[in-house]
Amino acid sequence: MRRILGALALGLVSWLGGAHAWAQEPLLVEKRTMTIPRFSFVSGATLADVKVGYETFGTLNAAGDNAILVPRTFSTDSHVAGRYKASDAAPGYWDAIVGPGKAIDTNRFFVVATDNLANLATKNPTVVTTGPATVDPATGKPYGLRFPIYQVRDMVNLDKAVLDALGVKHLHAVVGASMGSFQTFEWAASYPDFVDRIVPVLPTPQADGFLIGWLAAWQAPILADLAWKGGDYYGGPEPAAGLAAAMKVAYLQQRWAGAVERTAGLKPADPAKDPAASWDARYAIEQAMDADAQLRVRLFDANAILYGAKAMQISRLGGAASLEEGLAKIRAKALVIPAKTDMLLWPYLSQRAVSIRRAQGRE
Amino acid sequence: MRRILGALALGLVSWLGGAHAWAQEPLLVEKRTMTIPRFSFVSGATLADVKVGYETFGTLNAAGDNAILVPRTFSTDSHVAGRYKASDAAPGYWDAIVGPGKAIDTNRFFVVATDNLANLATKNPTVVTTGPATVDPATGKPYGLRFPIYQVRDMVNLDKAVLDALGVKHLHAVVGASMGSFQTFEWAASYPDFVDRIVPVLPTPQADGFLIGWLAAWQAPILADLAWKGGDYYGGPEPAAGLAAAMKVAYLQQRWAGAVERTAGLKPADPAKDPAASWDARYAIEQAMDADAQLRVRLFDANAILYGAKAMQISRLGGAASLEEGLAKIRAKALVIPAKTDMLLWPYLSQRAVSIRRAQGRE
Repeated sequence: MRRILGALALGLVSWLGGAHAWAQEPLLVEKRTMTIPRFSFVSGATLADVKVGYETFGTLNAAGDNAILVPRTFSTDSHVAGRYKASDAAPGYWDAIVGPGKAIDTNRFFVVATDNLANLATKNPTVVTTGPATVDPATGKPYGLRFPIYQVRDMVNLDKAVLDALGVKHLHAVVGASMGSFQTFEWAASYPDFVDRIVPVLPTPQADGFLIGWLAAWQAPILADLAWKGGDYYGGPEPAAGLAAAMKVAYLQQRWAGAVERTAGLKPADPAKDPAASWDARYAIEQAMDADAQLRVRLFDANAILYGAKAMQISRLGGAASLEEGLAKIRAKALVIPAKTDMLLWPYLSQRAVSIRRAQGRE
Repeated sequence: MRRILGALALGLVSWLGGAHAWAQEPLLVEKRTMTIPRFSFVSGATLADVKVGYETFGTLNAAGDNAILVPRTFSTDSHVAGRYKASDAAPGYWDAIVGPGKAIDTNRFFVVATDNLANLATKNPTVVTTGPATVDPATGKPYGLRFPIYQVRDMVNLDKAVLDALGVKHLHAVVGASMGSFQTFEWAASYPDFVDRIVPVLPTPQADGFLIGWLAAWQAPILADLAWKGGDYYGGPEPAAGLAAAMKVAYLQQRWAGAVERTAGLKPADPAKDPAASWDARYAIEQAMDADAQLRVRLFDANAILYGAKAMQISRLGGAASLEEGLAKIRAKALVIPAKTDMLLWPYLSQRAVSIRRAQGRE
């Protein structure tokens, strides 16, 4: 994703009207928590006291119409930019493009980002979310698979509740990558009068059969892990091995051969141990995949991965019967930014959406 | 793979000199078994009494030089064409191009195919192979991970032993797909005077870091399955769930979005059960992936998958220090047939090999 940040920043500066001067001081941001007293899912399920972690950058104007929403990706949270403390090792994931004087200029815009439902990183103490790992007040035990199945539209509706509470009357833009791109399209289809612009990055408005299959391939090793126990593993051993196996597939889908060639190539993990000679010896790429997977095991909840994948599988743009109907609901301008090396949200997905819009006589 | 058979057949007819008349009678073939008394691996390990299942089609000429070898793919065996009995439901996997009067014309050529080492389909009664599921005479127990790690060159050397025993003095061609393509290149590099032509299909001469990573992603869910038990699961529950999860990734890599769109699209597996409403309801593509995986669970040995993946990870063409050196050993003519929709052996792998050969002043 880092490789397209440069192009993205340049595109956004002119398209969103950002400033060209770059800030010097480190941006500090505070994590806040909001509780939505009663939330209704598209499915009809309802939930009391839904907690949402969120961050804001910049200042909302009096009209409440200078806001930009950055919905979360599959594996990120509300921490899009800045640091909680000046001593933090790294800033938020889109710090390069969100901040004072940056492409998404927080001197001009009020930027909002949330942790939303069933955020993966439940073990990250800065993440506040309600999901399958949350204790169900009715039983005193974590929901597990009894948590309502949610759709992308539910993510949008929950962020709408947060924006309402913050006094936001109108969105200048919604800018989101990957699973965030589903939300940009859904915002424009569900709330056509509320959103002026959408910037779907690594985008698709909804899944096709192939993507449903790949998401099932992520779910499979978790479901296959005996420690998963139908989702009721909380308090005991977690399905860490299954989660790690799933994340190895996702790791490769986010890279391309050239990236692996530059970083690992054919190098063994340990020059003294030939992978051809032993089952214990491995390659640098295998070590990198393992290290990345273990990082995710330490932060992620396996059930939340299942829920997020299910959300992408089942969501249909605007709740419409066809992609054509869903896209026809959109009135916002769109800047669609695919990456030809993305092996999950392949460019054909957004190219198809753009072709349909053009056939509908829309830009 | 079926989609490129037509183009392949046309190319082969003119390139290998096959006849243009098509046979009418069903081709019957017999499975035979050969035992190699002592086999030495590249690693230095040796094994007594290595059993190899094989099939031959057509007749070897007096000079012993009209032979074509079809090395096995990752998941197939020696059954490339014909039927064992006229009542068999389906013929061998390349029956469309191997047979009397077909592209690989068994009226003219003596075609040989083997099950080779650690064949995946150990539970298929017609497959004869020596691998991790074989009982080690020294211990009376299956080898498991104590079976020697093998390389593609070992597969070539074992097929060479079979060809020697059959009286083959020279190969007109080696035609192999996927893991078989590794073997076509290796034949030409290891036995440059023995092979006139190679036809690598879905080809690569060896793995790069990216492919090593994807093969590790196949291995991961098997290694994560508690039933795997370090490879010593024989006689008890097998790591079926891990094997199924691995095969779901492989299933998608062998297809492309358009194929899934045509066969499954967004259809639920059961029209009465909405996947958005329940964890028990799923899509047609998920059902297809499951059905394919369960078929493989019934036939395959999980350890053999680990060994086959390891072989592709560790093999270096011609045992050379670089791909350039390995390719420089080749004197055979090559007809290289990539598929742009293959998501494991991507076309860039063979394009790179062809570029290197051209830079070396070879066709």
